[in-house]
Amino acid sequence: MKLYGYYRSSASYRIRIMLNYKGLDFENVAVRLDRGEHRADEFRRINTQGFVPALDVGAAVLAQSPAIAEYIEELYPEPPLLPADAIGRARVREIVGIVGCDIHPIQNLRILTHLRSEFGQDDESVSAWCRRWIGEGFAVIEKLAAERSTEGRYVFGDSLTLGDVWLIPQVFNARRFGLDLAPFPTIAGIDAHCQGLEAFAKAHPARQPDAVS
Amino acid sequence: MKLYGYYRSSASYRIRIMLNYKGLDFENVAVRLDRGEHRADEFRRINTQGFVPALDVGAAVLAQSPAIAEYIEELYPEPPLLPADAIGRARVREIVGIVGCDIHPIQNLRILTHLRSEFGQDDESVSAWCRRWIGEGFAVIEKLAAERSTEGRYVFGDSLTLGDVWLIPQVFNARRFGLDLAPFPTIAGIDAHCQGLEAFAKAHPARQPDAVS
Repeated sequence: MKLYGYYRSSASYRIRIMLNYKGLDFENVAVRLDRGEHRADEFRRINTQGFVPALDVGAAVLAQSPAIAEYIEELYPEPPLLPADAIGRARVREIVGIVGCDIHPIQNLRILTHLRSEFGQDDESVSAWCRRWIGEGFAVIEKLAAERSTEGRYVFGDSLTLGDVWLIPQVFNARRFGLDLAPFPTIAGIDAHCQGLEAFAKAHPARQPDAVS
Repeated sequence: MKLYGYYRSSASYRIRIMLNYKGLDFENVAVRLDRGEHRADEFRRINTQGFVPALDVGAAVLAQSPAIAEYIEELYPEPPLLPADAIGRARVREIVGIVGCDIHPIQNLRILTHLRSEFGQDDESVSAWCRRWIGEGFAVIEKLAAERSTEGRYVFGDSLTLGDVWLIPQVFNARRFGLDLAPFPTIAGIDAHCQGLEAFAKAHPARQPDAVS
């Protein structure tokens, strides 16, 4: 498999964690978003949307991280990243939705560029925008995790799920934008625990070959 | 089942279509977003995030439309809304992701309110913001549908899938914000076809009891 990604893209980070956790070998192909490589025709022939991640699985190139994740989970169910029961799976996918729909896309590169160029916002205003949406989403996840995490090590129950795979890269982004994590102790605890796992450590943006120092 | 929704919420509209198509009876509970009922403590005890839709399935109240959709599909697989093969399912979930992550959340009520109150944008600027992100997403879906739709009746292959269930409510929103659909003839054709199906007609915002005239 070949993963088209970018070290700091949190959606790419999710798929790296997942592939590591499943023990799947993959070639990492850096698409330099900072140089606009994702918008070039060459990359749009690989992924029409021009977004990372895209996963070449041989028979096809798959796009959109939730679609890629469900595909990997279907083909490589062990070790599982979704609970065995339908309600549990819905609970985990709820976290995936809060992060992947209601937090992350709103602070995507193209959005922040628009705020600067069309609405004349400066860096501080753009960072405040990011902190607002991350903070609102984290307030919800903090409550859900406090109720549903068994030991405070994972966002749902007591094993690793796609919920953690979505949450931890978003915590990385939250720190980038200067969000104070003090109001989210459960999330901070889950982050601390997961950062200690090999699948997460290997997937960290700072450990990627395309990381810009 | 009890669906907490709002007539004009496109995420609620998705779930109405899906429940109709599966032939599942449900009670429709209107949460008046225009009156802020979703932010009230009473509703946050039902759905912590305070968003619609939320689906009470008896054993639990489920939130986030992709999580709800996967749950319904798992429990009520007939008639199917996902293809039989894994690559096909990933293709359909790709459309779900483009609409549900990269188009819809960016023109959600809370975001548009922020643009007005914090960035001082007027109605025309806010509508232009919506048209930009819908237009970018539709340009991608138009290309994908032109390649992957068999007869131009559905966004993937030749049967109804979650891709259409996500796309059609977004076309409704596109019209609300005055987006010209002329550059998207495949999408317009899929919309025309699906609007003729009973599951879609019954789910239309204008047909809901809470529709404001």
